Amino acid sequence: MAKSQALYAELVGKLQEVQTLESTSALLGWDQETYMPTRGVEVRARQLSMLASLGHAAFTDPRIGELLGELAASELVREPYSDVAAVVRETRRSYDRARKLPAELVKEMAATAVMAQQAWTEARGKGNYSIFQPWLEKTLGLKRREAECVGYKGHIYNALLDPFEPDETAENLRGVFAELRAPLVELVGRIVSSGRRAPIEILHRRYPADAQSTFAREAAKQIGFDFESGRLDVSVHPFNTGIGPGDCRMTTRYDENYFGDAFFGVLHESGHGLYEQGLPAEHWGSPLGQAISLGIHESQSRMWENLVGRSRSFWKFFFPKLHAAYPQATAGVSPEQWLWAVNHVEPSLIRTESDEVTYNLHIMLRFEIELNLLTGNLSTKDVPAVWNSMTRDFLGITPPNDAQGCLQDIHWSHGAIAYFPTYTLGNLYAAQFYQQAKSDIGGLEESFATGDFKPLLGWLREKIHRHGKRYSAGELVRRVTGRPLEAKPLLDHLTRKTKEAYGV
Amino acid sequence: MAKSQALYAELVGKLQEVQTLESTSALLGWDQETYMPTRGVEVRARQLSMLASLGHAAFTDPRIGELLGELAASELVREPYSDVAAVVRETRRSYDRARKLPAELVKEMAATAVMAQQAWTEARGKGNYSIFQPWLEKTLGLKRREAECVGYKGHIYNALLDPFEPDETAENLRGVFAELRAPLVELVGRIVSSGRRAPIEILHRRYPADAQSTFAREAAKQIGFDFESGRLDVSVHPFNTGIGPGDCRMTTRYDENYFGDAFFGVLHESGHGLYEQGLPAEHWGSPLGQAISLGIHESQSRMWENLVGRSRSFWKFFFPKLHAAYPQATAGVSPEQWLWAVNHVEPSLIRTESDEVTYNLHIMLRFEIELNLLTGNLSTKDVPAVWNSMTRDFLGITPPNDAQGCLQDIHWSHGAIAYFPTYTLGNLYAAQFYQQAKSDIGGLEESFATGDFKPLLGWLREKIHRHGKRYSAGELVRRVTGRPLEAKPLLDHLTRKTKEAYGV
Repeated sequence: MAKSQALYAELVGKLQEVQTLESTSALLGWDQETYMPTRGVEVRARQLSMLASLGHAAFTDPRIGELLGELAASELVREPYSDVAAVVRETRRSYDRARKLPAELVKEMAATAVMAQQAWTEARGKGNYSIFQPWLEKTLGLKRREAECVGYKGHIYNALLDPFEPDETAENLRGVFAELRAPLVELVGRIVSSGRRAPIEILHRRYPADAQSTFAREAAKQIGFDFESGRLDVSVHPFNTGIGPGDCRMTTRYDENYFGDAFFGVLHESGHGLYEQGLPAEHWGSPLGQAISLGIHESQSRMWENLVGRSRSFWKFFFPKLHAAYPQATAGVSPEQWLWAVNHVEPSLIRTESDEVTYNLHIMLRFEIELNLLTGNLSTKDVPAVWNSMTRDFLGITPPNDAQGCLQDIHWSHGAIAYFPTYTLGNLYAAQFYQQAKSDIGGLEESFATGDFKPLLGWLREKIHRHGKRYSAGELVRRVTGRPLEAKPLLDHLTRKTKEAYGV
Repeated sequence: MAKSQALYAELVGKLQEVQTLESTSALLGWDQETYMPTRGVEVRARQLSMLASLGHAAFTDPRIGELLGELAASELVREPYSDVAAVVRETRRSYDRARKLPAELVKEMAATAVMAQQAWTEARGKGNYSIFQPWLEKTLGLKRREAECVGYKGHIYNALLDPFEPDETAENLRGVFAELRAPLVELVGRIVSSGRRAPIEILHRRYPADAQSTFAREAAKQIGFDFESGRLDVSVHPFNTGIGPGDCRMTTRYDENYFGDAFFGVLHESGHGLYEQGLPAEHWGSPLGQAISLGIHESQSRMWENLVGRSRSFWKFFFPKLHAAYPQATAGVSPEQWLWAVNHVEPSLIRTESDEVTYNLHIMLRFEIELNLLTGNLSTKDVPAVWNSMTRDFLGITPPNDAQGCLQDIHWSHGAIAYFPTYTLGNLYAAQFYQQAKSDIGGLEESFATGDFKPLLGWLREKIHRHGKRYSAGELVRRVTGRPLEAKPLLDHLTRKTKEAYGV
């Protein structure tokens, strides 16, 4: 027992070293997006590349393999969700993957990502897909090699999905997405044919950046984001990054002619931040101190952004504050008008600007295309045509060009293939967790109306945050809600809110 | 030849790795002082400690010793100031020092510094020297051990001075300082007895922080600081840190009731920044891409702060801009009054707030005390009495308590003993270089009056910045000015300006 405990301590110590290097990279990445001077980019690339090498070397140290082997045979892993069992299971997963990936492949993928991103930027700027196509082709080739190196069961997609969403499969996603798709398409159709349109012009009045910053911070603080353990800064592309316990940083951007971008963006990033701030500090470095998956992370951001932040009770508390913060922009606006505007649904071309209902259709389209690209059922040259025809089928509109179609997302150029589904998984998990929270906590939404978000945050901390990676996402959702992941809670939520907003 | 070139390339590659780690630490340090959330300190300590270990391991790699040995025997070092000769000479100096210091001593010094700084903070807060005394005693013991480990010629002080000011000696400093001291004491005496007092209250009017930031940035840009390769932020203790070519960051703080702190602080840090931005980027990582010494670094900051920034011609250009930036605070102020106010001389207790003339007396006092503490001629318990009596001798005033006396500086608590003289060396080098620049460049100060600082910056780049550590400080000053370091240029400058301001 004492010997196994010592081995476990040694393993955790090694993982903490890896995490220390990774958290340093995270800070450098944050600085690069927020404050780094333009010309600092060359030294920054050296720093990040060195930290990546050091981190890789530290994590693939064969001693970690030995420790995993010895611990796997010890009495400490008998209880499947014990600290040691969870740490061994999750470390084994990422250790094996890291060891199986040849260094030259990792290097080639990193180099390709740099060039593919340049090509993508140019292609999008010129609306010319053919500039990006050879790079997408090359990226797919590398990702197929990656999949073959790490191995998989079922669809080749599973090999690439695994690091983002451990244990999730294309087969399962297909099932869940199939349940979701037809009802969503139908819902959107009903909204469009209703001819009703939310008064969204009130969101496009003048909202001064300073006031936006103050108001968004106030909201973030009110829902529980701890600014002594975190920050909010400005960057071109909003993100959240957990440097470690006591240091979680989010960013946003201010459009003075649009309220929604920064405010809901900050609620979204705060949701990520609350998860990071709720991970157990004593397990920092080990899987028990890490988020389960991108889907679960996204469930936290989407819950605060959409299920909480666009709810009637949320605005019951915040509307008077909104009015005080922007007396001119909100002059004559009623709470009902406001609530409808922030819950507006309308098919649009750009995923990142889309609403809560149509968003998932954007994801399913990408998922289908990725599946077929990987198997070779779809050729890269046919992507624009397929993209456009699917957009018509799903959303009833057609991109006028590829910049607003298949070139809109940066992800594929980064090599992030099989990443998109985690966004919809986030929406699905969020709705299922939230339904459970409402059933577990009496008067949950009534508390929002008084500015009290502690009951929900406390529930999330207890049910989700404090566990780190102790359970897989699938296991967690079963433990928390008593059921596997299902489409119904999200569909119910979306149906209810569009009924309220559009009467359909 | 080809083989030696390959060895040199290998050496430089290794030094660049060390520098990459150090520059990462520099960024982490900058972030800690500027933006890090309060509770981020624990993870930050882990990150910095890990980077320090990695950097130490990389720099003390025996392979570096081998490369230095082989290169020292090669034809590439025949010319004493060739790239290779300079790199070998300077790397050998720091490599030997790093190898001679036992890891346990380095660790104990780091741990002691943390605790000594806590004790110093408490002692200063309570004005109670006895809280700090045992820590000063312990620090001195460790510094004596450090000196014995690395070895030295002459005074033990030399061993500790060397990393800050290579090749400088206590013996030489004593000589230069002796030339300086009596004339300065006499000069201060004359100013005090003149009974004349600059109208410094105009500096203590209301200067809004935003306007200070804008005006200081404008001045920094005007003298040549490149904001695409650098930043200005706010921190409690102002500093400058070079992350690497293209990334040099300075900080300041804004006192809305005092003009001088931020403005001259930014000129000072810009001077450091111009040096960093002028180091040859192609030699980044090797000694040829590094500043010569703290004294030479300080000569650049002091030159821009004092010799340029407090000059008549500088304010000829900036006074109208000052007036436009702060119409209320400068209402009715004449350029002459302003010039006198920013050149005010008056004995005061706190070094960091002291003027250009009395500043050096503060340093000489500390130098004498450090010399005697290290040899044991002065006991730590007698420091307050000696400090106070020397302050009386040098400045004619007596600290009412130790917080305004021997507890005012953080340096000793950090283990930075033998650091203070580099400040006065900076003033001396600055005056000697500046005298030479005026003689080399026709109409130098006339150009300032038109806002043109390029002739001076170009001269500094050519004579000083581009050489990195190719020459020692002593060799550089001889090459640039044709003479060894002397007290006369600084004395001439101070005499001239106080004559102009006070008529004495």
